[in-house]
Amino acid sequence: MKALVYHGPNQKSWEEVPDPTIKDPTDVIVKVETTTICGTDLHILKGDVPAVTEGRTLGHEGVGTVTEVGSAVSTVAPGDRVIISCISACGSCEYCHQGLYAHCLADEGASGIGWIFGHLIDGTQAEFVRVPFGDNSLYKIPAGVSDEAAVMLSDILPTGFEIGVRYGDVQPGDIVAVVGAGPVGLAAMMTSGLYGASRVIALDLDANRRELAREFGATDSVDSGAPDWVEQVLAMTDGLGVDVAIEAVGVPTTFDACTRIVRPGGSIANVGVHGKPVQLNLQDLWIKDLAITMGLVSTSTTPMLLKLVAQHKLAAEKFATHHFGFDQFLEAYDTFADAANSKALKVIIKR
Amino acid sequence: MKALVYHGPNQKSWEEVPDPTIKDPTDVIVKVETTTICGTDLHILKGDVPAVTEGRTLGHEGVGTVTEVGSAVSTVAPGDRVIISCISACGSCEYCHQGLYAHCLADEGASGIGWIFGHLIDGTQAEFVRVPFGDNSLYKIPAGVSDEAAVMLSDILPTGFEIGVRYGDVQPGDIVAVVGAGPVGLAAMMTSGLYGASRVIALDLDANRRELAREFGATDSVDSGAPDWVEQVLAMTDGLGVDVAIEAVGVPTTFDACTRIVRPGGSIANVGVHGKPVQLNLQDLWIKDLAITMGLVSTSTTPMLLKLVAQHKLAAEKFATHHFGFDQFLEAYDTFADAANSKALKVIIKR
Amino acid sequence: MKALVYHGPNQKSWEEVPDPTIKDPTDVIVKVETTTICGTDLHILKGDVPAVTEGRTLGHEGVGTVTEVGSAVSTVAPGDRVIISCISACGSCEYCHQGLYAHCLADEGASGIGWIFGHLIDGTQAEFVRVPFGDNSLYKIPAGVSDEAAVMLSDILPTGFEIGVRYGDVQPGDIVAVVGAGPVGLAAMMTSGLYGASRVIALDLDANRRELAREFGATDSVDSGAPDWVEQVLAMTDGLGVDVAIEAVGVPTTFDACTRIVRPGGSIANVGVHGKPVQLNLQDLWIKDLAITMGLVSTSTTPMLLKLVAQHKLAAEKFATHHFGFDQFLEAYDTFADAANSKALKVIIKR
Amino acid sequence: MKALVYHGPNQKSWEEVPDPTIKDPTDVIVKVETTTICGTDLHILKGDVPAVTEGRTLGHEGVGTVTEVGSAVSTVAPGDRVIISCISACGSCEYCHQGLYAHCLADEGASGIGWIFGHLIDGTQAEFVRVPFGDNSLYKIPAGVSDEAAVMLSDILPTGFEIGVRYGDVQPGDIVAVVGAGPVGLAAMMTSGLYGASRVIALDLDANRRELAREFGATDSVDSGAPDWVEQVLAMTDGLGVDVAIEAVGVPTTFDACTRIVRPGGSIANVGVHGKPVQLNLQDLWIKDLAITMGLVSTSTTPMLLKLVAQHKLAAEKFATHHFGFDQFLEAYDTFADAANSKALKVIIKR
Repeated sequence: MKALVYHGPNQKSWEEVPDPTIKDPTDVIVKVETTTICGTDLHILKGDVPAVTEGRTLGHEGVGTVTEVGSAVSTVAPGDRVIISCISACGSCEYCHQGLYAHCLADEGASGIGWIFGHLIDGTQAEFVRVPFGDNSLYKIPAGVSDEAAVMLSDILPTGFEIGVRYGDVQPGDIVAVVGAGPVGLAAMMTSGLYGASRVIALDLDANRRELAREFGATDSVDSGAPDWVEQVLAMTDGLGVDVAIEAVGVPTTFDACTRIVRPGGSIANVGVHGKPVQLNLQDLWIKDLAITMGLVSTSTTPMLLKLVAQHKLAAEKFATHHFGFDQFLEAYDTFADAANSKALKVIIKR
Repeated sequence: MKALVYHGPNQKSWEEVPDPTIKDPTDVIVKVETTTICGTDLHILKGDVPAVTEGRTLGHEGVGTVTEVGSAVSTVAPGDRVIISCISACGSCEYCHQGLYAHCLADEGASGIGWIFGHLIDGTQAEFVRVPFGDNSLYKIPAGVSDEAAVMLSDILPTGFEIGVRYGDVQPGDIVAVVGAGPVGLAAMMTSGLYGASRVIALDLDANRRELAREFGATDSVDSGAPDWVEQVLAMTDGLGVDVAIEAVGVPTTFDACTRIVRPGGSIANVGVHGKPVQLNLQDLWIKDLAITMGLVSTSTTPMLLKLVAQHKLAAEKFATHHFGFDQFLEAYDTFADAANSKALKVIIKR
Repeated sequence: MKALVYHGPNQKSWEEVPDPTIKDPTDVIVKVETTTICGTDLHILKGDVPAVTEGRTLGHEGVGTVTEVGSAVSTVAPGDRVIISCISACGSCEYCHQGLYAHCLADEGASGIGWIFGHLIDGTQAEFVRVPFGDNSLYKIPAGVSDEAAVMLSDILPTGFEIGVRYGDVQPGDIVAVVGAGPVGLAAMMTSGLYGASRVIALDLDANRRELAREFGATDSVDSGAPDWVEQVLAMTDGLGVDVAIEAVGVPTTFDACTRIVRPGGSIANVGVHGKPVQLNLQDLWIKDLAITMGLVSTSTTPMLLKLVAQHKLAAEKFATHHFGFDQFLEAYDTFADAANSKALKVIIKR
Repeated sequence: MKALVYHGPNQKSWEEVPDPTIKDPTDVIVKVETTTICGTDLHILKGDVPAVTEGRTLGHEGVGTVTEVGSAVSTVAPGDRVIISCISACGSCEYCHQGLYAHCLADEGASGIGWIFGHLIDGTQAEFVRVPFGDNSLYKIPAGVSDEAAVMLSDILPTGFEIGVRYGDVQPGDIVAVVGAGPVGLAAMMTSGLYGASRVIALDLDANRRELAREFGATDSVDSGAPDWVEQVLAMTDGLGVDVAIEAVGVPTTFDACTRIVRPGGSIANVGVHGKPVQLNLQDLWIKDLAITMGLVSTSTTPMLLKLVAQHKLAAEKFATHHFGFDQFLEAYDTFADAANSKALKVIIKR
């Protein structure tokens, strides 16, 4: 089969590799029909994720059809159309019993972490993929849900919802600010409505993205480069700040921004992936009764979000801005990497 | 001033009564501008609520302007346009500290219960009303919110939300069934969206109400008189039943209906006011991991709901089907009492 | 091997049966070293549970050593000393992902219910037992925990804690009444301390059990046969009633008792197994803001309770009142069935 | 009357001042019978809290008897023996309705913050004190509770419980580490049992305090100056870290320590008052699914903790290590300031 293979920093190719086979009784083989590219894939290609070794097939998002199942698999069967979750979970360890699949203790790939596709084992940017612990990592897709919508449930929508909205403890009536209107920030905006936010404020430096945010649930937007951006946000509240500030960029400036606009008793939910420390002004913040949260998605809400997509309550397909075939994989990467110009949110790559 | 006065079973009049005055330092006098009639008022008029004595001014919903405040009042001032909550709360007792204002232990009207307007003290169907504990029972109305919308926050919307949706623990993705599409049932349907319900099924015997329900957030409806109504509901789920069943009628049949359509691990939220016991089939239900809840609204969520109304996230004004002047009060009662023919949901009566 | 086999109403024997073998890759064989008898086993023997057919080995509680594992089992290995949970769970279905293992949808024994041992498949009152879905149904026992303590975690302690204390939402400072001081009621009393109850009131008709209750965490006791028992309970509160009433008998009288002693805003947690309907006085209760819960244990808290037993925070071994060898199985049944005279709580039967 | 008056940095005296009088209808005058000194008082005396001006009577903890009440006060009356809460709350603002009294929006002392005694208005280290919003800031003491126990409910026990244990979300079975075994750290240890912690690990540099911690609920202790202190803590867990780490010192080192011993999915509850920023290693922590909380006590749990003290479930009086009369006030300050030598936890000063 063909797959998108990492060959060291800045090197990749769409090339012939061996077909995957069942190794463990809990494995499932899926024929990938639709996949997409994540910002993390770009980081890997820069060489920023040393755990990814040369020869690794990338990708952790995908939709496809089951072709083969191991002897212990009971919830899916050949022919089932499924979402491949970006997180693998044994279903039996202490963390899995808590629903914290991101921290699964099983040792597939010799690591106690749930994100293994395109990282510790071969991923979904391929014609076929081996899915460990298939019973806990695949979700059957009901009729009427498109591949474009379903693939957003592999990672992006659960990430925005679980790490942004749920960790941020959004409650009905809340005013939510999302700092960063990239794909994950937009996913947080879209799912803020699931807990009845009264206002969703999009903060971004890019006017195009601020405008786009309104299609994903933002009711207001603020240019985070404006000298009075803090005052603008506070003016949209009772003057005390927002109930929930969601960080969706991953740099110290945006984290700090969240601490400046959140009200006493509020929450800061960090969704961004950070590369260096941040300064936390506890001398000012200790008295403010804040909760600061962070984490890697567990995709425990994927089946729930899928119900909402199936009922047309979440327009997941809106994230799909560009379409490619498997034979245009490198072009898809170029388009996604150049999002500033291409305006790409998520690129869809289909068999 | 004039007021709608109860004179014993089936007797009422719109008549001259003394103006209310400040009695306690925490009292507020409100000039009533808009009020409405509740099903409870009809029960009182039938003589079903013995605590209501002859000479009592009825009504526990209203919107108006503050005209005078007691010496200890700090949150409202003359000229403020306010919602009068149907529940009075001292703000200092154990129940008030929990937000369970319905069970306030203060003894205004010699009763430890939060519903006192038009019950134990004179109510809101009058040109002026004395509001005890004004700081905890009045909510200032922001610009842009109509009287028609605001008056729904006195009772009906918080009742549907607190006793139906929140006690029922509606969660994102849930399938919710509401048995009874009267005003409070419709309020539960409208506010189910605040916790991201994926489907809201309206059950009612009346085809007109089932149709109406779709304007208030129902995604589906079932004729609860159909021989296969249970099967119809189950077919809208995975076959196991709904996540949350909300009872919004108050008779044994509808309560029993809820127990037949709820899935294991689900909730039954009783909103209806019951006049007789129900049979609970614990021999079948004990194993089903259910929660059955019930209660009187505390209106603790009125300010939160008001934010959503102000942001046009809840179209509260939709409940207002008929309009009258204060001088048409008896006509308004007739229209409301004959809802089956008049199709009245809430009748608006304005100064 | 030998096993305790049901041969129809009132007939059982300790007899030779075939050894169990691995059927599915997720199976585990456990050599049973310690088991016990549950009130449910007595019900089965009366013929009250028609799903139990002749020839069935009884028992759903036990402690032993793993002797063989299926090819997909990863969390236990031969030689491990384990608790056998009374609930079997696939770990992969919607209910298992919620931790509601009691409602596991897997079809072992052709039933979507977690309690299958000694019910739909052969149970633990045997020298060996086949445990389906071993990864989700067995818990390794740390050094220093006795069999007598560990076997209480198969069913009784999680039942009292999950269905009584947690469903009852006991909070620090709460006053908790437990109606019925049998083994499960005592388990609820013992675990009420895990949420900081300030008083635990034991209600029972039997003076001996009321006395015993004080060794299991009760701070007070009331003779539920006294004419003024309700007043006695209310006098232990501020006059409004207890925060949480736990029903641990399973008859209409005790359920009704709970509704008479619970305060507004409180909870009733039904733990008892009921054989007939109860009357719920909704005409009085609808206004009281109550939650009534019920359910079958999921044993999701078994590993957590095991930590507390290992740290000597829960004296689980206190339930073990009588000891027998496997060759005294029928005598053990007689002693347990005659608890009124034998004062048996749990009888321990050891290899 | 006499009071302990601040006269600028390092200057204080026990001197004659005017008696307080009722200013607002919600005021209460309390005759102080027992008070104590807080670490914050020492900070004020160093000049570290500029909002405290010369001439201010210090102190925010106390027990006494009501002597006079304003016209709007309804929950206490002259002669009532009461706890004076360190937090003042109007009971009517948005924050008070949430129970977040620390952020009360009323403007007594021209500040929207609940801590005003000995800060923005005269405090409790005096023969009499004026208590604003008496209905929400005083708690009647039941018979059988000593002054020594009751005064710990003004600040220290609710602080350890609300900001440490509850914000840290301690759950039954959890392993809790408390960094810093001073009075507030010990209060967190003592109240960890209210949520069923299985182990409580005390970390401190001082051997005496580590030993003392065992009397306040610690099951284990670690010398936080030992080179392998992290390994020692992890060895008390399954190797992954503690469920909850409570910071009870207020310096960067101890905050950082918490981030090094908490497990994925765990919580860090900051109780310490910080004077400078801390570095948060988000590059490592973003993936760990942590919640970091902080805040000022609201004393919303004071009445609940009082129930537990009255039932002898919390030995609050243990914090009282030294006793003085009002005429020994300066000596009491010296003893408390020299805690390293005097071994003082809380000094009791009685009329």
